[in-house]
Amino acid sequence: MQQLVVTLDCPDRPGIVHAITGAIVAAGGNIVELQQFSSPDSGHFFTRIEVTGAERDLLSEGIAQATSDFDADFLVADARPVRTLILASKAGHVLNDLLFRWHGGDLPIDIVQIMANHDVLAPMAGFYGVPFASRPVTPETKAEFEAEVVRIVNEERIELVVLARYMQILSPELCDFLAGRAINIHHSFLPGFKGANPYRQAHTRGVKLIGATAHFVTGDLDEGPIIEQNVVRVDHTMDVAKLVRKGQAQESQTLAEAVRLFGEHRVLADGHRTVIFR
Amino acid sequence: MQQLVVTLDCPDRPGIVHAITGAIVAAGGNIVELQQFSSPDSGHFFTRIEVTGAERDLLSEGIAQATSDFDADFLVADARPVRTLILASKAGHVLNDLLFRWHGGDLPIDIVQIMANHDVLAPMAGFYGVPFASRPVTPETKAEFEAEVVRIVNEERIELVVLARYMQILSPELCDFLAGRAINIHHSFLPGFKGANPYRQAHTRGVKLIGATAHFVTGDLDEGPIIEQNVVRVDHTMDVAKLVRKGQAQESQTLAEAVRLFGEHRVLADGHRTVIFR
Amino acid sequence: MQQLVVTLDCPDRPGIVHAITGAIVAAGGNIVELQQFSSPDSGHFFTRIEVTGAERDLLSEGIAQATSDFDADFLVADARPVRTLILASKAGHVLNDLLFRWHGGDLPIDIVQIMANHDVLAPMAGFYGVPFASRPVTPETKAEFEAEVVRIVNEERIELVVLARYMQILSPELCDFLAGRAINIHHSFLPGFKGANPYRQAHTRGVKLIGATAHFVTGDLDEGPIIEQNVVRVDHTMDVAKLVRKGQAQESQTLAEAVRLFGEHRVLADGHRTVIFR
Amino acid sequence: MQQLVVTLDCPDRPGIVHAITGAIVAAGGNIVELQQFSSPDSGHFFTRIEVTGAERDLLSEGIAQATSDFDADFLVADARPVRTLILASKAGHVLNDLLFRWHGGDLPIDIVQIMANHDVLAPMAGFYGVPFASRPVTPETKAEFEAEVVRIVNEERIELVVLARYMQILSPELCDFLAGRAINIHHSFLPGFKGANPYRQAHTRGVKLIGATAHFVTGDLDEGPIIEQNVVRVDHTMDVAKLVRKGQAQESQTLAEAVRLFGEHRVLADGHRTVIFR
Repeated sequence: MQQLVVTLDCPDRPGIVHAITGAIVAAGGNIVELQQFSSPDSGHFFTRIEVTGAERDLLSEGIAQATSDFDADFLVADARPVRTLILASKAGHVLNDLLFRWHGGDLPIDIVQIMANHDVLAPMAGFYGVPFASRPVTPETKAEFEAEVVRIVNEERIELVVLARYMQILSPELCDFLAGRAINIHHSFLPGFKGANPYRQAHTRGVKLIGATAHFVTGDLDEGPIIEQNVVRVDHTMDVAKLVRKGQAQESQTLAEAVRLFGEHRVLADGHRTVIFR
Repeated sequence: MQQLVVTLDCPDRPGIVHAITGAIVAAGGNIVELQQFSSPDSGHFFTRIEVTGAERDLLSEGIAQATSDFDADFLVADARPVRTLILASKAGHVLNDLLFRWHGGDLPIDIVQIMANHDVLAPMAGFYGVPFASRPVTPETKAEFEAEVVRIVNEERIELVVLARYMQILSPELCDFLAGRAINIHHSFLPGFKGANPYRQAHTRGVKLIGATAHFVTGDLDEGPIIEQNVVRVDHTMDVAKLVRKGQAQESQTLAEAVRLFGEHRVLADGHRTVIFR
Repeated sequence: MQQLVVTLDCPDRPGIVHAITGAIVAAGGNIVELQQFSSPDSGHFFTRIEVTGAERDLLSEGIAQATSDFDADFLVADARPVRTLILASKAGHVLNDLLFRWHGGDLPIDIVQIMANHDVLAPMAGFYGVPFASRPVTPETKAEFEAEVVRIVNEERIELVVLARYMQILSPELCDFLAGRAINIHHSFLPGFKGANPYRQAHTRGVKLIGATAHFVTGDLDEGPIIEQNVVRVDHTMDVAKLVRKGQAQESQTLAEAVRLFGEHRVLADGHRTVIFR
Repeated sequence: MQQLVVTLDCPDRPGIVHAITGAIVAAGGNIVELQQFSSPDSGHFFTRIEVTGAERDLLSEGIAQATSDFDADFLVADARPVRTLILASKAGHVLNDLLFRWHGGDLPIDIVQIMANHDVLAPMAGFYGVPFASRPVTPETKAEFEAEVVRIVNEERIELVVLARYMQILSPELCDFLAGRAINIHHSFLPGFKGANPYRQAHTRGVKLIGATAHFVTGDLDEGPIIEQNVVRVDHTMDVAKLVRKGQAQESQTLAEAVRLFGEHRVLADGHRTVIFR
């Protein structure tokens, strides 16, 4: 029997871990990894448990019963790669990195489709054999583009949408629709340098480190719960173009790590913050 | 009732977590934090659990019964600071950092005594009100110095011995006596640059990063299980003296972090490696 | 003859380096290190040159003549430590670090005096033998405190004022008076989390890295030219108190590095940015 | 007129900078960037100067005359990309990164050809339109493979050979032939974990950071002058496969940075060490 991952979130109170582990034992499962966290901010309890030797439906049922008094949200996931839709634009560094890692089996996702508002990345998608569709996004066509995103998410049972430097602001409706399952990469160390041209802002301010931030997409631009961040040292000799180049490696790595964490069910939302079980 | 920390190590097999958490529930305890790891290398299971609401002896007894079939080594520690003996020599940067952090309540240890083979650090110890004893270490007097270490460890119920740039090689007998409870700071990124003058070695080799390594003391010099490591970037303009200066901040930070991890019972030995529950 | 450091700033145009190096050769000097930078933003040229074998006044005169057409600001400094006044409050981690490094000869400064708005750090100053004066800062007494700062700067020929977690906002007049010679440590990675309680802000926002920023003091709070920044990784398990502890090591290191750079005449202002000749 | 880069290396003595800058002024050049370093270890002087406004042959002649007494090695390079041959094997992560960056104009090289001892990377080379030749390397065919390398280097005027995880040991003759113009990426933080399977060695030793090292190829395996190094944090939960994945991003980035530095003429050899003018 394959490896299963249980993630669970409920108001904190004594006995939760024992109840869940009891259900796992009852289902014949063995705990390979267990992490848990009680958030003093929200009063919630979070756990992530890797289990082998149990049958998925049986385990799911057992946990449902064992936690029926706990008001718990839980998920029992198998090791299947997470079905992923990528939104892109013209910049290819982040997409190239995701495709290469995915192709090499390094990411726990299945890239089902790429959608873009330009067609320059079509050859790259083609090289990796991923369906690619592009259509312009203008004030007039934006709704149409987003409707297509919704259609694909529904029809293709997409579990994760990755904004790989998509550079367009999603409508509040689409943000709501994708809540908790869309990850964006922002090319700065948030909360510094929100909005457009963060590398230019960083140059103007004269910072000595620049960074990248992967976060959940929410209606509040650049304010979604942060999943991963990285920085790299810069100095006065670097113009904006050099900052961009230097930052791109961080963007690729930061987004890939966030996608990996999500695909392995290691990211749980705790209000406006994230619990990351590494 | 105060916070307790349970650490446990046993051969891995199904049902361990459930058995332990059962004992915790039975003792009226609430799990605040639980981490566990199954080592594929050694086949051992390791866990660290923070518990509130339970009485220490009762919990200890309960865990002993619940795990009687598991061939387990376990410890139930209270939040009391770990009684610590520091061995030093002439260099004060690491000692100063430990004393300052301890004095400010930032380290979970109680510095009971400082022993050194020189007296230059006596005023620093005096400022922080820590008993300080120095006596020369020569081939003739080394056994005597080490006998004094053993005496203090025994009489003062020392739980941790920190070699804060002590710069003397301990005898195999003392290494054995202190096994698992003595931490050394080596001024290089091990396994690179073992032995004497690592900064000079680093300069000669022309590395672009230098580092520091905190590890358990064993009879095998510079080969003990690694607890913590850090590096910092250097360049061709830096002579050995600059490397030393640059590295000292890493040494202080790395040792302090290792001491903190040990004092919070977050370091478990897995053969020649360590399991660190951060 | 001792080592001299020439720093020079002028509008960029051809021939500057040749003119200056000519003056150095004429004064019998040998160039040990030379760095230069032409800022595309400001159109200014900056250089820092270490010279041996020349007499200071002679070299100064020679450079003045050689650059008379360049509208240059320049300084010929000897290796004398920079006379420094430290302003502190109650938190001692940064002050302890500065005092220890200075005491060990690791910082190119001479700590002439410490002024604080509380007296808790008096024993630490006493241990290191540095004159310490404290007086409360209230809306009523602030002007008096600042007048005392000005008096000491003037009478003691202070070249650098370090705000070692002083936690008081300087008046615009004092900012002007100290322009280009006062360094503050802010306990966040600016421009994120300006103002009060940055660690609490960082916790609320759920960032994955926290940092510290050393910058010149200006009338525009937390907006002065940045000299040095560092970050350290944090996670969801850390409450505000842990972020504070984790960040303090960064604060100490970042401020010490900024002070070292300043004391070695490696920091030049380029409008709102800094040129750092490492 | 285009940008030129002058690199020069000679025994240190007074007046060098002034002599060179004089030749630049005489050739009508403007210094955009100048860096210099006097090595206390070798007694050599190194400089790198970016010049605009001068004609290459004229400048070269001028510097030759001005430095005729200095026993100098110098080069005046134009901004043309460095002609590069890549040697690869089966692992594609490093090659993919180089090709993508080069394709996007981010690397100052021209990838003329790829040679490999396996053909699995042929499609990747094809996608980027780079000639690709593969032939097996066995004890019997190794000499033939290397003769082909020499032929291509000569015929195609190759200036840089990059070993992108080529995984074969070059013969001493080829090492000599390529001295100072071949860069290898080693998948560990040298000098730790030389030789084969460094990630396995790192796992066994239980280090807390792993890294990658880009160095010049010499006949002394894994001992060539180091150009660039990076590390990344790991922990006890990571098996060898995870270390490999984690390390690959470091390998790609470290090699790309070393290639960029070389292509911009920022790497000078100082005996067994390198001078890197960033």
